[in-house]
Amino acid sequence: MKKHNFSAGPCILPQEVLKKASEAVVNFNNLDLSLVEISHRSKDFVSVMENARALALEHLGLQNKGYQALFLQGGASTEFLMVAYNLLQDKAAYLNTGTWSSKAIKEAGLFGEVVEIASSKDQNFNYIPKGYTIPTDIDYFHCTSNNTIFGTQLNTFPETSAPLICDMSSDIFSRQLDFSKFDLIYAGAQKNMGPAGTTLVVVKEDILGKVSRTIPSMLDYKVHIGKDSMFNTPAVFPVYVSMLTLEWLKEKGGITAIEKINNQKATLLYTEIDRNPLFKGFVATKEDRSKMNATFNLVDEAHKETFDKLWTEAGINGLNGHRSVGGYRASMYNALPLESVQVLVDVMQELERGA
Amino acid sequence: MKKHNFSAGPCILPQEVLKKASEAVVNFNNLDLSLVEISHRSKDFVSVMENARALALEHLGLQNKGYQALFLQGGASTEFLMVAYNLLQDKAAYLNTGTWSSKAIKEAGLFGEVVEIASSKDQNFNYIPKGYTIPTDIDYFHCTSNNTIFGTQLNTFPETSAPLICDMSSDIFSRQLDFSKFDLIYAGAQKNMGPAGTTLVVVKEDILGKVSRTIPSMLDYKVHIGKDSMFNTPAVFPVYVSMLTLEWLKEKGGITAIEKINNQKATLLYTEIDRNPLFKGFVATKEDRSKMNATFNLVDEAHKETFDKLWTEAGINGLNGHRSVGGYRASMYNALPLESVQVLVDVMQELERGA
Repeated sequence: MKKHNFSAGPCILPQEVLKKASEAVVNFNNLDLSLVEISHRSKDFVSVMENARALALEHLGLQNKGYQALFLQGGASTEFLMVAYNLLQDKAAYLNTGTWSSKAIKEAGLFGEVVEIASSKDQNFNYIPKGYTIPTDIDYFHCTSNNTIFGTQLNTFPETSAPLICDMSSDIFSRQLDFSKFDLIYAGAQKNMGPAGTTLVVVKEDILGKVSRTIPSMLDYKVHIGKDSMFNTPAVFPVYVSMLTLEWLKEKGGITAIEKINNQKATLLYTEIDRNPLFKGFVATKEDRSKMNATFNLVDEAHKETFDKLWTEAGINGLNGHRSVGGYRASMYNALPLESVQVLVDVMQELERGA
Repeated sequence: MKKHNFSAGPCILPQEVLKKASEAVVNFNNLDLSLVEISHRSKDFVSVMENARALALEHLGLQNKGYQALFLQGGASTEFLMVAYNLLQDKAAYLNTGTWSSKAIKEAGLFGEVVEIASSKDQNFNYIPKGYTIPTDIDYFHCTSNNTIFGTQLNTFPETSAPLICDMSSDIFSRQLDFSKFDLIYAGAQKNMGPAGTTLVVVKEDILGKVSRTIPSMLDYKVHIGKDSMFNTPAVFPVYVSMLTLEWLKEKGGITAIEKINNQKATLLYTEIDRNPLFKGFVATKEDRSKMNATFNLVDEAHKETFDKLWTEAGINGLNGHRSVGGYRASMYNALPLESVQVLVDVMQELERGA
């Protein structure tokens, strides 16, 4: 049965990528060896790593601009502490827009003074704070571009003279931005890039090397840069599948092309959420709605059993909302086809007809 | 062509495991979804993680003895710093038997006093130091059970009243030991357990929580234990393949059964290295030879071109020695069949006949 996979992450990946990845697990590059049983120093794997790093920079328009792309391990959760370890000497400013921002703030607090310049915690993170002022005496400013759990997304990024650091785990490669405004971008692979187990870090080299503390090797961005992202054995399979997904994105026309489809998907679903009297969106301010994760609830919980039955029968997977929000969450990452959103909208309309 | 994979790591895994893993990448548990595109909180994946953790403890005979098994990220290189972050309050003792021990010592030095109680660096690590005394006023004693690069292995472990910490990356699950003598064992997956990208940590809980520093969440063993090794999104594919490999080991009869075959393989190869006048072993003391990684050289480098051609034509992969040692290294991990070692020995004898 054809599945429509709205999982929030790990999430849907392009089917052709999964097919190639599956083949490589038994026979990679016609070597008669598995991708996962060859040396990471072999030319076949070194070329995977180099290709993945180059594609990441190319998609973001950051080649030859002083940036380095790294494929590390440990997810965004490890970046929460690495960012601070590498960059926080005295004081940093954080924007708190949800669970992941809050965790980033907590970890950074171990390394210096952290100023939470604005937060939407007062309303369970159902909007993006605006009108805040970023102090000038800071080592960096940190924000989360998309809030997977709550379904909000930053549409504009603040101007700041300090380095701009962004956790783009759940919307990287989904929309065109001037990425050169950012000094460090990080993203766990498991949304728009690949399987869980690797983290993309794109860092402008000139912001590094300015803190006085000694940094353990594995937590030091400069160490990883110096070894071309191969200081230690990388997560071979996740990096390879990320490379395949970045190649797939290039064949599709890159971020600009995928953004058009992402906009169509989001418009289709949000239009239905707003039109259908049985549903209401979770996010209070429509301009802050995420195009990756649409959060919504039933107006009347009495329809829950029927709705859950309908979408499950339609082959929809992963629609339950996070426990912090409840209701439903439709994650519409790059690899999700428009057709799957149409199936969800059809089910929402079927519920309305039967109500 | 059938390959005989002597790669030092990432290395050979059981072929039936790779076949199952390949299938799971396109359709896992007949869900019509890939293993890598479902939530790590789904019951299907939670069961993978629980099974992998339980199997690791079962193989080591450490169930219900106060130990926890964790599948983390970042490889042994991350454990070098995590061990010290979590356990080094004042002073720790390290045995230096090679590149990886040296790296562990370097990282630990950032967190407290590190005493290198013995080292074989004076002879390019071609033996295991003996007769050293371990101080009693230490937080822990750390050693590396098998030295992948140099081909040495600890056959006995010292008695110490302090917690015994061991990097078993390249020989875990290959030989029976009294694992309850160890307080913390760690191992990157990519030798006897699975693909690169996850690290097994087996830790006795009562040694934790004794340092005064605050530990960042991702580096804190207690945090990972408290969340059943799912504090953040784990490396789904590497953990799954590790689980499959641990199941395969159980079907084979566990460590005791595989150790017999590992002994046969090592005896077959070392007997030929010692018998064949064209070759000499790298390790100075025969009792310190590794059963996982046999390092050897040609007596006369003039035979190099012919030998390299012979083994390549025989379908042998990954036989070149590490640049620190030169010559050859035959890694004979659990999944390598005895037949592959026989092919290598045949090639060595063929070289002798032609010389």
